[in-house]
Amino acid sequence: MKKLINTPESFVKESLEGMAAAHPDMIKIHLDPNFVYRADAPVQGKVAIISGGGSGHEPMHVGFVGMGMLDAACPGEVFTSPTPDQMLEAAKVVQGGAGVLYIVKNYSGDVMNFEMAADLARTEGIQVANILIDDDVAVKDSLYTQGRRGVGTTVLAEKICGAAAERGYDLKKVADLCRRVNINGRSMGMALTSCIVPAKGTPTFDLAEDEMEIGIGIHGEPGRERMKLKPADEITEMLALSIIEDPAYTRIVREWDDEKGEWVDVELVDPPFQPGDKVLAFVNSMGGTPVAELYVVYRKLAEICEKKGLQIVRSLVGAYITSLEMQGCSITLLKMDDEMLELWDAPVKTPGLRWGV
Amino acid sequence: MKKLINTPESFVKESLEGMAAAHPDMIKIHLDPNFVYRADAPVQGKVAIISGGGSGHEPMHVGFVGMGMLDAACPGEVFTSPTPDQMLEAAKVVQGGAGVLYIVKNYSGDVMNFEMAADLARTEGIQVANILIDDDVAVKDSLYTQGRRGVGTTVLAEKICGAAAERGYDLKKVADLCRRVNINGRSMGMALTSCIVPAKGTPTFDLAEDEMEIGIGIHGEPGRERMKLKPADEITEMLALSIIEDPAYTRIVREWDDEKGEWVDVELVDPPFQPGDKVLAFVNSMGGTPVAELYVVYRKLAEICEKKGLQIVRSLVGAYITSLEMQGCSITLLKMDDEMLELWDAPVKTPGLRWGV
Repeated sequence: MKKLINTPESFVKESLEGMAAAHPDMIKIHLDPNFVYRADAPVQGKVAIISGGGSGHEPMHVGFVGMGMLDAACPGEVFTSPTPDQMLEAAKVVQGGAGVLYIVKNYSGDVMNFEMAADLARTEGIQVANILIDDDVAVKDSLYTQGRRGVGTTVLAEKICGAAAERGYDLKKVADLCRRVNINGRSMGMALTSCIVPAKGTPTFDLAEDEMEIGIGIHGEPGRERMKLKPADEITEMLALSIIEDPAYTRIVREWDDEKGEWVDVELVDPPFQPGDKVLAFVNSMGGTPVAELYVVYRKLAEICEKKGLQIVRSLVGAYITSLEMQGCSITLLKMDDEMLELWDAPVKTPGLRWGV
Repeated sequence: MKKLINTPESFVKESLEGMAAAHPDMIKIHLDPNFVYRADAPVQGKVAIISGGGSGHEPMHVGFVGMGMLDAACPGEVFTSPTPDQMLEAAKVVQGGAGVLYIVKNYSGDVMNFEMAADLARTEGIQVANILIDDDVAVKDSLYTQGRRGVGTTVLAEKICGAAAERGYDLKKVADLCRRVNINGRSMGMALTSCIVPAKGTPTFDLAEDEMEIGIGIHGEPGRERMKLKPADEITEMLALSIIEDPAYTRIVREWDDEKGEWVDVELVDPPFQPGDKVLAFVNSMGGTPVAELYVVYRKLAEICEKKGLQIVRSLVGAYITSLEMQGCSITLLKMDDEMLELWDAPVKTPGLRWGV
């Protein structure tokens, strides 16, 4: 295992300590329980946005803490859900009296732990909404997930909702917006190589030298198909068409109903893409793929979007939601409306995403 | 060879096309000869800053074109110098009547070709200064270099000089500043793995599963020592102490003398670091190393700087000067003065580095 770490046990903590040392103007860290939070938290009167999940996907989520994005992020061990005490403690530290939105990727452990944390926070008088991200079109149900996995759209939801909270949206409006981003975003990924979880020390899965996996999850969960390596244009076409031609997707999610004072089942439908849609095109590195290759993918993606009548109005190209050092990429398309566009363009200052300030 | 490309021959061109498609607000591309240039070029009355070098180090240089940084970048084939016609044509397109600064990494091919381009540009009435970057403390003389190689300080020089040009510094002032950045910056890198040049299809060098190379060049040129893999803290210490304890470094470089109308030899001396110095600390991924590992390195680097009396006043952590998908990192320390600090903080809007706008 070749990694720039000291020990598997100290990796997450030392990485957080390095982040805090590098970006004292943006973030602070709390250890035991572990979370990263805005240097100027709590921001009074602002909805606090908190996310989290297993480590190993950096910069997501810890790198997205700061002005205009997350108020806090709770990192678990590598590829392991954080625990409710992290999420609860983070909420207590960053909440500014206007409630907390937990943005939760759809993995069973994360979903359960964020629900427990929300229940605990409510007993302490903090208003909380949980919104799930489940945007991965590759597979229905997966190794750690019932329904679709939460992947690239998470990054976009955190940016857009972060800007909304910064502008003074109340909790219900931020939660509604987050749900809207989720149902309008779709993603799919692929891997050229496996990654190695430090505590395990060996590859999560094996891929032959001439093989790749299409539809892979960000923890190396099986995708749609393992196949012979193909040129970038063909790979891009497989990912992009799976996203663009994905039909309406209906599922039931659990959300907290403040009026009823209980968790309720909500039916959500992702509307399919239509010619004329304005989209944000996001080409993401799984960690080990350099940006020059991502632009080869972007080139073909832009061509396909044009053919399909989708107008790319914004782009994001880089390593934003990764799987340690895995080589590969994912594509996310998010249908944008004017409000989302304006919020996307709003200033953001985090270690992993920054502009306008 | 596992890469997201179509063919080795089309890689550079298609990557440039993808960049242009993704960032039409920032850049345009010119093909045959290849260069990337600012979307709003030429900026009248501003010194134009142009850099370039072999591809495979992205985002450097093509990803640093845009407001507040480079006016143009000339990419060669992977790890191969661009040619004088690229540099000349770029100068003609982006020059705004205030002259051109070529920022040149110290590799023999790049140095020779940028000198030829400068001579050609002068025959067309364009004032040109060439400033070399030679900041790699690892080795004296290398596979493609006489003297020290140009590495991480290049990124910092492009940012700082780009801001200066944006503020209206004249060519002599920008060139003087670039030289000052170079002599105050020092770097060293290491590799955990090799990379694969697409046209070759096999690793540039072999490293056993338990080996690493300290002092490696960004094209896989041999470093100081191949040794058994060590914990991140020990690796960081080797790199950081080599940089911090590097004595004064004296060499002769060739610069154009406008008054004499000829190339002259100039003696430059890098002053050693001193306790009390303010530094920018830059931890860079060689391409395949994810950012979470870079922060483990940063953590130890910050500790060492503090012990040595160096005050870190700014940081940069990420993949900025890469070697394709190579795993490993480099550290750059740049002694900052107030002017450099202010220019570092100035707005920049490029595909690879952005803030303040």
